[in-house]
Order: sequence, then structure tokens, then C-alpha cells
Amino acid sequence: MLPQWIIEKKRDGLPLSEEEIRFFINGYTCGEIPDYQMSAMAMAIYFKGMALDEIAVLTDAMMRSGDLVNTAPIRKPKVDKHSTGGIGDKISLILAPLAACCGVAVPMISGRGLGITGGTLDKLESIPGYRTNLSDKEFIDIVQKCGCSITGQTGQLAPADKKLYALRDVTATVPSIPLIVASIMSKKLAAGIDALVLDVKWGKGAFMKTPEDAGVLARNMVEVGMRMGKGMAALITDMNQPLGRTAGNALEVIESVLALRGEGPEDLMELTMALTTRMLMLAGKVKDYVSGLHLLQEQIRSGKALEVFFEMVRLQGGDVHALEDFSKLPTARFQEPYRSPSDGHVSGVDADLVGRACIVLGAGRKRTEDRVDFAVGVSDLAKIGEPVSKGQPLATIHANDAQKLEEARAMLQKAFTLSDENVPPVPLIRDMILPEGMSD
Amino acid sequence: MLPQWIIEKKRDGLPLSEEEIRFFINGYTCGEIPDYQMSAMAMAIYFKGMALDEIAVLTDAMMRSGDLVNTAPIRKPKVDKHSTGGIGDKISLILAPLAACCGVAVPMISGRGLGITGGTLDKLESIPGYRTNLSDKEFIDIVQKCGCSITGQTGQLAPADKKLYALRDVTATVPSIPLIVASIMSKKLAAGIDALVLDVKWGKGAFMKTPEDAGVLARNMVEVGMRMGKGMAALITDMNQPLGRTAGNALEVIESVLALRGEGPEDLMELTMALTTRMLMLAGKVKDYVSGLHLLQEQIRSGKALEVFFEMVRLQGGDVHALEDFSKLPTARFQEPYRSPSDGHVSGVDADLVGRACIVLGAGRKRTEDRVDFAVGVSDLAKIGEPVSKGQPLATIHANDAQKLEEARAMLQKAFTLSDENVPPVPLIRDMILPEGMSD
Repeated sequence: MLPQWIIEKKRDGLPLSEEEIRFFINGYTCGEIPDYQMSAMAMAIYFKGMALDEIAVLTDAMMRSGDLVNTAPIRKPKVDKHSTGGIGDKISLILAPLAACCGVAVPMISGRGLGITGGTLDKLESIPGYRTNLSDKEFIDIVQKCGCSITGQTGQLAPADKKLYALRDVTATVPSIPLIVASIMSKKLAAGIDALVLDVKWGKGAFMKTPEDAGVLARNMVEVGMRMGKGMAALITDMNQPLGRTAGNALEVIESVLALRGEGPEDLMELTMALTTRMLMLAGKVKDYVSGLHLLQEQIRSGKALEVFFEMVRLQGGDVHALEDFSKLPTARFQEPYRSPSDGHVSGVDADLVGRACIVLGAGRKRTEDRVDFAVGVSDLAKIGEPVSKGQPLATIHANDAQKLEEARAMLQKAFTLSDENVPPVPLIRDMILPEGMSD
Repeated sequence: MLPQWIIEKKRDGLPLSEEEIRFFINGYTCGEIPDYQMSAMAMAIYFKGMALDEIAVLTDAMMRSGDLVNTAPIRKPKVDKHSTGGIGDKISLILAPLAACCGVAVPMISGRGLGITGGTLDKLESIPGYRTNLSDKEFIDIVQKCGCSITGQTGQLAPADKKLYALRDVTATVPSIPLIVASIMSKKLAAGIDALVLDVKWGKGAFMKTPEDAGVLARNMVEVGMRMGKGMAALITDMNQPLGRTAGNALEVIESVLALRGEGPEDLMELTMALTTRMLMLAGKVKDYVSGLHLLQEQIRSGKALEVFFEMVRLQGGDVHALEDFSKLPTARFQEPYRSPSDGHVSGVDADLVGRACIVLGAGRKRTEDRVDFAVGVSDLAKIGEPVSKGQPLATIHANDAQKLEEARAMLQKAFTLSDENVPPVPLIRDMILPEGMSD
């Protein structure tokens, strides 16, 4: 079996056998198959696609290219959530303790932000002392103790994905459904979970620009996960405007704490509840949507969810006082309103432009090696459908540099569009892919 | 400009600009663009193709990636011939001195055989002493003296092609028309010629399996050459059965000498005359096909063509006595007939299988690094349409190893098919692509 024969087969649109896929991925992981053969294969996959069975084998091979987290000591059902990324998406911080309260174990391995997309690890690291470099043992111990833990990827988790992702980035082979599915799922499933809820975003601030594309990706991931024996559900959600009213690391931690106190913005709460309820249903903790919702609301009302979040932060070395007194979180030098130029209704808040404004301020990364300023970003974002009057703030800009503040202001000016007429709010959850038997 | 942006553009089926193509090829040649980006680009080109203008720029960029042979001292029109390769194709050995006799300079840079395809250099090297590693100066001097020279590629001729060809071989990107055209033409045109005649073969023993595919390749090469200011013509010719009656290096040298004496087999003479006449027409030496043919016949009748061939061999260090007394050429230990199993007419001589038999005997290479046995091969090959009787030899096998002789015999048994009925001979020249104004 020569690598070029397998490339040729895919190039000609033929399905690859399990043996061929494993041979290719194993050879690539150990360096016997060089980058130039992998990139030709990736381009052939880009053009010819893969059947679901092939994607499942590819995912499994990439998952097994490194260590698997041994979650066997955890006796509770282990369920995770994955979002394809967007602006202002701090859901993991709220969802993990919420699900943990209800008897679900959430061993969550997260990533950093890149480009306009924020990263859960960056947000958590804005809490002084919070460690995202846990060993596997620490990670499992913390999940055992408080029901959830959010940490970073260790070096040996799905190394094939690490190599392949870097290669795809420089060979124009990123937007390929089979490769995206295998990349996401191999990492997520290497964490040893039983079930996974997906938040697949579409819109201006998302990788997928249409709900149809997001739906195709979601269906592929759900099918592949199910073939690998995992419980799966997916929501297709709007990322045309940012989620919640803040974007920026420490600012989003504050909004998450408020949400856990029951004071979160409506859209953020709606989506968090929807995703967490699906986790409870996959874990067999609740039978239907409404009882899940009530159970979760009770965890917030009682303060239990906030308590679990604090406990997780404490166990990971974070300073919980900063979550009680926000002035102890990184705070920006300048806090300036961006004011509405006229009366009207908010008709658009371009998530892409808000994300770019955050990068300008220093809240995000242009390149992997860039450092992030935890303090900066935007807060008090007006939402589509809200009436505004001239001079009323549409957002607050948090900046540590006066010039960057003005640059960000100019971008916000483009991001917000107003209308004279009443604008109906955008439906946040566009579609759902649920396993057979799970009620809407 | 980042390489991945250019790959992406081609991936999306957009035409690349001259600047982008040159940036990519120059970067690849000097190592700034790594193999893994080039292989992704090659696969994108495989799927999306290239317009003729793009192929012309690609060819030019690859041609200029190394040294160009300075043929300026040669004042005669410089015309070359290129064949896409086959079994028993020794035409270059006859055509070069024939064209030279008529006032055309033929600076021919040839290759070695690989797989079933024979190589002109291997054939010439079976002449004791013949050198194929001439310096540029020696090469030009010999063309000046006798009108033609056949030598090997120097290290710095189209190095981008050398790198890219090796890469395509291991990334399943060989069969791509734009890449094939640029590979062939960049090398040929780096030799500083004014015009080129192409012999594009189709059939069992050729890279192109149908006349239609061969036609597409030929038309692309002709169009690209014309865009680069070269005189171009192409013949689409049959390679279902071997050309002439011999395959094997020294055996083909003998057949070439016989052809230059006017004693060559009909098909070999027909194609040699057709290709050489087109060279004379492109060089402006004759106005029409018939006068070209007569001029060439006269060069053979008078012995002048043979004289020029001997002169070229002598100037390149070869022993001309071996061309007068063939026993001084490498000769095989065994010479055994392969006899017809029945009466009938030859209905097929599978060129692919004859080529494989030659590889078994040692006349060809499986891999670039293999050594070639000049003495072995097959001669006296029967041709399609010829009547044969049981026991009559259909070929003579020349071998240096008794076991390999039997292996080759078994392959010839499969190669020859007989029919009870009269079989019409196959048309050798299937189609022609001639410049406007050139008569058929």
C-alpha cells in the first residue's frame, strides 16, 4: 500500500477503506507520510468529500493518534458541549456548572480564540490565577469534586489533528466538511465523553455563512458521533449579532457570573438553557425539555450553579474574590460609550465587525502567537429590535489605548445599523438536530 | 501575497494572474514555497484545470526556473521533435540527421526510459563510447558542425519541473493536462528552439489511452507553444502496437541505421517522414508536404542522412564501427524465436505487454535508479494485418538470462492475438494539428 495510491483513489471519488484511512493517518502522525502527501489528500477530500462511514473512521483514527483521557473513574454520565465559535459566546462558563449541578459530569477541553472567534480559555484566564494547563489527573479530580472542569488541550491529545490543522491552514483546505468534522470530533471525543451537544453557528460572525451550510456540518457531526456510539444533539444558532451584551474576556466573565445569578441577558440565557437541557436529556437526567428547563432555573435561583462555578474556579487556582468584586478583574483604562447617531430601531449588529473591533482593542488574536489583553472589549451592546434614541449609548468601549479606542469606535459605527421601522428580533435557534425519540 | 491565497483561488476555479503563477513557481524553485503547498496546488489544478494563457505562463515560469541553452550562435532555424513516449520509438535517431541534412538545426535534449516507455538516451548509449552528458558548449558546437546533437538534460535545465515532477509522482497529480503540458514544454523550450513538432501517442503502450485524450493534450501543447512564439505542429499517432519491428536499445539502434539506409520497416519510415517533413515546413525549408517528402527520400538515397548520423555519433565520442559492424554493439547471449501457435492474421500486438516483456528482459527500468541491459529486447516483430502460419516466428527474443527469456516468451504469448479473418492494418497517423496555412 503506497500513500499515492490512496490519494489517487480519493482523487477519483472512490470511498477509502478503514484500513486505508488508518494507514494514512497513522503514517502521517508518525511522520512516515510527509506533509506533501497529506496536503494532496486534503485537497482531494475537499473536492470529492467523504461518506459518513469514512468520516467516522477518519475521526476515530485522528482521535486515537495520541492519548485518550481516561474518564473511567468518573461514574456519572459525561457530557460536553461544543460551539463552532462566535463573538460573545461565553456559554461554556455558565453551562458547565449548570449541568454539573444536575448530576452530569462535564470534562471540557477548550481552545483559545483566533481571529474574530473568542476562546473559552482566554476568558477563564482573565480570572487571576485560573489554570488551564491541568494534568489529566488534576482534570479528572476536579470533575470528580465539583462535577465540571474547563482546561486546555494537552500536547498529546489528537496530535494528528494538531498537525493536520496547521497544514490545512496553509494549503487552502480548511473549509472541507469531512476535515472539519474529524478535527472537531477527534479532539472532543478524545476527552472520553458519552455524549455531546453541538452549537453550530451561522451568520456574519460564524465560519458558516448560511443556516444551510451550518445544518450540513451539524448533521455530519451528529451522524459521525452516533456512528461512534455517542449520544448527539445539535442546535443551529444565529451568529449574525454577538451573543449577549459583552465581547471581551474579563467582560464576558462578568456577564457569565451575572447569568449564573439569574441576571443574564435574554438571548444568552435562552441559548444556554437550550443547550444545557439537551445535555441533561442525553445524560438521561430529565425526560422532556420543560422539566429540564425548570430544573436548570432552580439551580440558578438557589445559587447552586454559581457555587459550583466558584468551586471549579477555586480548584483550578483562580481567585474567587474577583468574581464577587469585579474591580479585581482586569479593568481597562478607558470606558467610553458609543452613542447612537439617530433615533430608530437597531436593525443589525454585525458580529464580524464587533469581533474585528475587539481584535483592534487587543481582546483577540490575529495570529496564534499574539497575546491577549483580558481587560478590553465592548459591553452594553444593544440588540437587534431594540428602540434607541439619538445620543443613547449602543455600546461601551473598554480600551487601554486612546487610538485603538477611536479605531474600534469607527468599526462599531459600521457594525450598527438602524431602521426607522420596528424590527422583529432574530430567532436565535434556527433549527435542531435531535436523536430519535428526543422531544423538541 | 501568501501561497495559500493563490491555492485557494485555483481551488475555487478562478484563473491565476501571471504575477501569481510566477510568484508560486519562483518560490517553489528556491524552496520558499514548500512541497506541501505545491502538492495542494497541483491537486487543485488537477480538479480545476488552467486556461491556455495560464498554462503558457506556467510553462514560461518553469522554463525560466533554471538555465536556458544559448542557441544564439546557431544561425539555422532550430527545430526539435518531442514524443510523449512509447514502445519501439527510435524516430529521434533517424529524424535528427534527416532534418539536419536539409538545413535545419536540431538541438535535441532527450530523456531516459522509465516503465514501459523507452528512452532515446538509453538507445544511443548502447553505442560504445557515445556521450549523453555534453556541456552546453559541446552541445552547441556539435549542432554547429553536423546540424544535430542528442544529449541529456543538464542539472540546471528547468529545475522547477524536476522538483515538481518528482512531487506529482507521489501525490497522484501526474495525469493533469496543464501540468503535463508545462512539464514537457518547459524542458523542450529551455533548449532555445524556434519550432517544435509533437508526436502525441495514444493506445495500449501510451500514457493517453484514447485518441481523444491525446488530441486534447496535443491541442493544449500546440496552443501553449504558439502563445510562446514558437512554430508548432502535432501528430496524433497509434501506440497500440510497437513502432517498427524492434524494441530494446541496441536492437533499435540497428533498426535506425537500417532506416537511414532506406531499409527500415514501413510504419517507422512513414511516421519518421511525416514528423521530419513537418519540421522542414516549420523551418521554412519546403513549401508543401510532397516536396518535403521527396527531399527527405533523397537524403536517404544519397547516403547523406546516414553520414550525418555517423558524424554526430563520432562527435559525441561514439564508435562508428559498431554502426557498420553490428556485432560490435552489445549482443545478447540467447536469441530465440517466439513462434505463432496457429495460422491466421495478426490482429493485435499489445504494446504495453511487449514493453513489459522488455522490462523483464532488462531493457527498461522499473525505477529511475535501475540499470539497463543494452543488448536485450525483441526484434522481427510481426505487425497487425500480416498473415502468419503456425510455427512461423512472430518475434525474436534477445535475452541474457534463460529464465527471463521464458518469462518474456509468456508475455509475448499474451501480447499477440491472431484472427482467422483478414485484419486491416491500423492507421498510424490518426489526426494532425497544423498551424494555419500549413497544408496537410
